[in-house]
Amino acid sequence: MYKKPTLYTCLSPALLHLFDLNNTVVVIIDVFRATTTIATALYNGASRVIPVAEVEECKRLGNIIRGSITAGERDGKVIEGLQYGNSPTEYPREFIENKTLVLTTTNGTKLLHLAFAKGCSEVITGSFVNLSAVCDYLINQDKNIILGCSAWKDRFNLEDTLFAGAVVDRVKEHFVIHDDSSLMANEMFRAHHNDLYSFMQHTTHWHRLAAYGLQKDLEYCVSIDVANVLPIYINGELIIEKILIT
Amino acid sequence: MYKKPTLYTCLSPALLHLFDLNNTVVVIIDVFRATTTIATALYNGASRVIPVAEVEECKRLGNIIRGSITAGERDGKVIEGLQYGNSPTEYPREFIENKTLVLTTTNGTKLLHLAFAKGCSEVITGSFVNLSAVCDYLINQDKNIILGCSAWKDRFNLEDTLFAGAVVDRVKEHFVIHDDSSLMANEMFRAHHNDLYSFMQHTTHWHRLAAYGLQKDLEYCVSIDVANVLPIYINGELIIEKILIT
Repeated sequence: MYKKPTLYTCLSPALLHLFDLNNTVVVIIDVFRATTTIATALYNGASRVIPVAEVEECKRLGNIIRGSITAGERDGKVIEGLQYGNSPTEYPREFIENKTLVLTTTNGTKLLHLAFAKGCSEVITGSFVNLSAVCDYLINQDKNIILGCSAWKDRFNLEDTLFAGAVVDRVKEHFVIHDDSSLMANEMFRAHHNDLYSFMQHTTHWHRLAAYGLQKDLEYCVSIDVANVLPIYINGELIIEKILIT
Repeated sequence: MYKKPTLYTCLSPALLHLFDLNNTVVVIIDVFRATTTIATALYNGASRVIPVAEVEECKRLGNIIRGSITAGERDGKVIEGLQYGNSPTEYPREFIENKTLVLTTTNGTKLLHLAFAKGCSEVITGSFVNLSAVCDYLINQDKNIILGCSAWKDRFNLEDTLFAGAVVDRVKEHFVIHDDSSLMANEMFRAHHNDLYSFMQHTTHWHRLAAYGLQKDLEYCVSIDVANVLPIYINGELIIEKILIT
């Protein structure tokens, strides 16, 4: 008899050790703003995005890869010595097409490497801008899924949780979900799917970024399917999953 | 100028290290069922509850303390060698009055000891059966607060989160709350405060306990103020905070 795969939501990188990652697809979620920027850069024609944990590694790769852009933020600000920040609006097609984006961020990159180090079979990245691509892919894989919220310095955040809830809402018929995190995330999304932008203004991260004048970024970050590609992590690089763009 | 104290919600013992516990009151929450049982035993006249982490320590204290009851569960079942379990219905007044309950549980006791080890100034315990006592106490303390969910083996659970949300709902005017966990908890509670019992039947812990035939326990565990005392942890023992019972 066919047995549906499982789906769990991990609310913080500090909880990832609680989950069995073997033979599992991990969806890295960092809505504000790493995974939104990754989808946007690839959607706008970047050849690849290389996520790195350390600033020095980011600079090193920037020096040796032709046509690369180095970018990154810590605490929401561009890092000294890198060229660009972590704002999706910095990467329109006329700028990023056919280039390599080497990106280091506070939370998203960290979780991505952690998941891979713990032996998951596959990492993809998700945020509202590529919601449908993520859901379609998960439904077609027939594998166990972890929705991995990047959180903020390991603290629970609502924006990543709401995206996890959006995914649960779309794919739940296809998975066994016995998980209070997923149930909560789905409830929170259903309560706010019609007012995501205004509800996000109550979150702590919003206040943090809005203080830097990034309101426009955040509006973009909750726009559904405006950069609807599927970034998949292969050999240290995020590229567009080809099946979905044929 | 008067500055309100802060309030944070910690969703799992595995996240407690993220919070500054100095000069902070930690509310240990283990709705199913440790902190419900603790409040109930004290409400029904137990002289004290001694929470211990290990089964052997529980037995040792049971042997040396006159008039003590040893009790505990692992994975929802009574531990071999102990006298009673972790069901609040096991501790009516005619049984527990003037006795010492030595209790070891899966999650709640662990978090209590962890919080104290990390230097918080005070530990109290809360659950729906003593919601008002907890809220009144917190409002009167004028100290920073951590609402500590015991979770299930470090995994997020809804029942503890909903109680945290109930507390936030009552006390929020008195605290600075910039914390997505508290915001989420409060939203979840507000969405379900009129159907707590039926909503709880969707949670994973409910399914786990219901499999052991403990539905009646769970109904009691979501009953507000039916054992409305304030357990406070002093010198290794939980006793009733005297101010509240005068």
